[in-house]
Amino acid sequence: MKRFFGRKQGDKIIIEEGEFHHLKSVMRMREGEKVIASLNDDFDYYCTIEKFNKNDCILSIDSVQKCVGLPNKNVVLFQMLPRKDYLDNIIAKSIELGASKIVTFSSHNTISKPLKKERLINQIMTACKQCERSKLIDFEDTISFEKMLEELSNFDLVLFPYENETQVLDAKVLNEKTNIAIVVGNETGFTQDEANALKQKAISLSLGKRILRCDTAVMAMLSIVNFFTNN
Amino acid sequence: MKRFFGRKQGDKIIIEEGEFHHLKSVMRMREGEKVIASLNDDFDYYCTIEKFNKNDCILSIDSVQKCVGLPNKNVVLFQMLPRKDYLDNIIAKSIELGASKIVTFSSHNTISKPLKKERLINQIMTACKQCERSKLIDFEDTISFEKMLEELSNFDLVLFPYENETQVLDAKVLNEKTNIAIVVGNETGFTQDEANALKQKAISLSLGKRILRCDTAVMAMLSIVNFFTNN
Repeated sequence: MKRFFGRKQGDKIIIEEGEFHHLKSVMRMREGEKVIASLNDDFDYYCTIEKFNKNDCILSIDSVQKCVGLPNKNVVLFQMLPRKDYLDNIIAKSIELGASKIVTFSSHNTISKPLKKERLINQIMTACKQCERSKLIDFEDTISFEKMLEELSNFDLVLFPYENETQVLDAKVLNEKTNIAIVVGNETGFTQDEANALKQKAISLSLGKRILRCDTAVMAMLSIVNFFTNN
Repeated sequence: MKRFFGRKQGDKIIIEEGEFHHLKSVMRMREGEKVIASLNDDFDYYCTIEKFNKNDCILSIDSVQKCVGLPNKNVVLFQMLPRKDYLDNIIAKSIELGASKIVTFSSHNTISKPLKKERLINQIMTACKQCERSKLIDFEDTISFEKMLEELSNFDLVLFPYENETQVLDAKVLNEKTNIAIVVGNETGFTQDEANALKQKAISLSLGKRILRCDTAVMAMLSIVNFFTNN
């Protein structure tokens, strides 16, 4: 069943703007058809399309169920700002692979540029719909390397895949951890000083013998963490 | 050090065509500079640029080392022909994540179209260079679903991530396996008959609660297999 993001109004759900356009003009849906609505909360709202207006459509709610696609662990990705095309892929795949939040950070080897917020939100919505997550992933403005280091203190476990590391992940460290941070560099990587500072706060580890692109490293880390935490 | 694919001639290595263009015009390298040459075998050839000709350049070999980036397990990806843009990503990421070979297959839910071989080979070369693999991944013409099923008999272990499955991978099955096949569907997935036929030959498993795109499923499977087999 097709999924659309909307907002609640009384006992109805309203689908508007881009989502309305997609439902009406792209999917060509009609009154009486069934859809799932997401209200950016923990539930899936099974609905019937009740009425089309000029700029929105109104859904009546048939039943409500807890969304099964939401992650059950808090896995936050701290991503050093990469070249733009990597970030797109990183966001889409992190959502599929159960990240709860993505925080970009700047560092010695980044070129800071403002993120195109509206575009990112559309992209996040598309990925959430595809993998059946009812809640959008949190996404904040880019923070500094120093601020990122500070934030790492809030986690039970911080993992840092590092190309100059040889030790691989001992999966036992993941036991019963529910609040996990993953810190990933960009194409140019961390300076030695940054890597040293990170190692004070994080378990640095190798993802094998091959040099992975930053987006591949994110996916490998999330896949392994998901596997061991059943996220 | 930059890596280029070439061919051996006597005790020298010749870099030509696209690789020559890249070395000379894109990287603007000069005589006397050091490079790594790959001859599509198991070794890295550390070389010095000896001489530029009009259409090629000649390298002298300084030393030879076993390539560390090559996978040590035989992990073959059987990929149901997806929409073109997914295949690009699947190939690039599979190379980084240690697949030995990619075989595309057609099925009820595919639209068969000829693969653009030359473009694929360029793409394979780029990915191999990026992740420091000296040997190109094998890539064959698309085979039928039936032929794919037959080929699965050649493996110790066949894994089949399936969206209608609930059991997750028991990592013990990977113990000491060195000859592993992974079978992944496309956006439209397998028919019930195809899935049933596959289950006779493969361990079907869930990759979690979220519906992954086919390229994400490939990456998650390869990341997990690599982790447990140290590939």
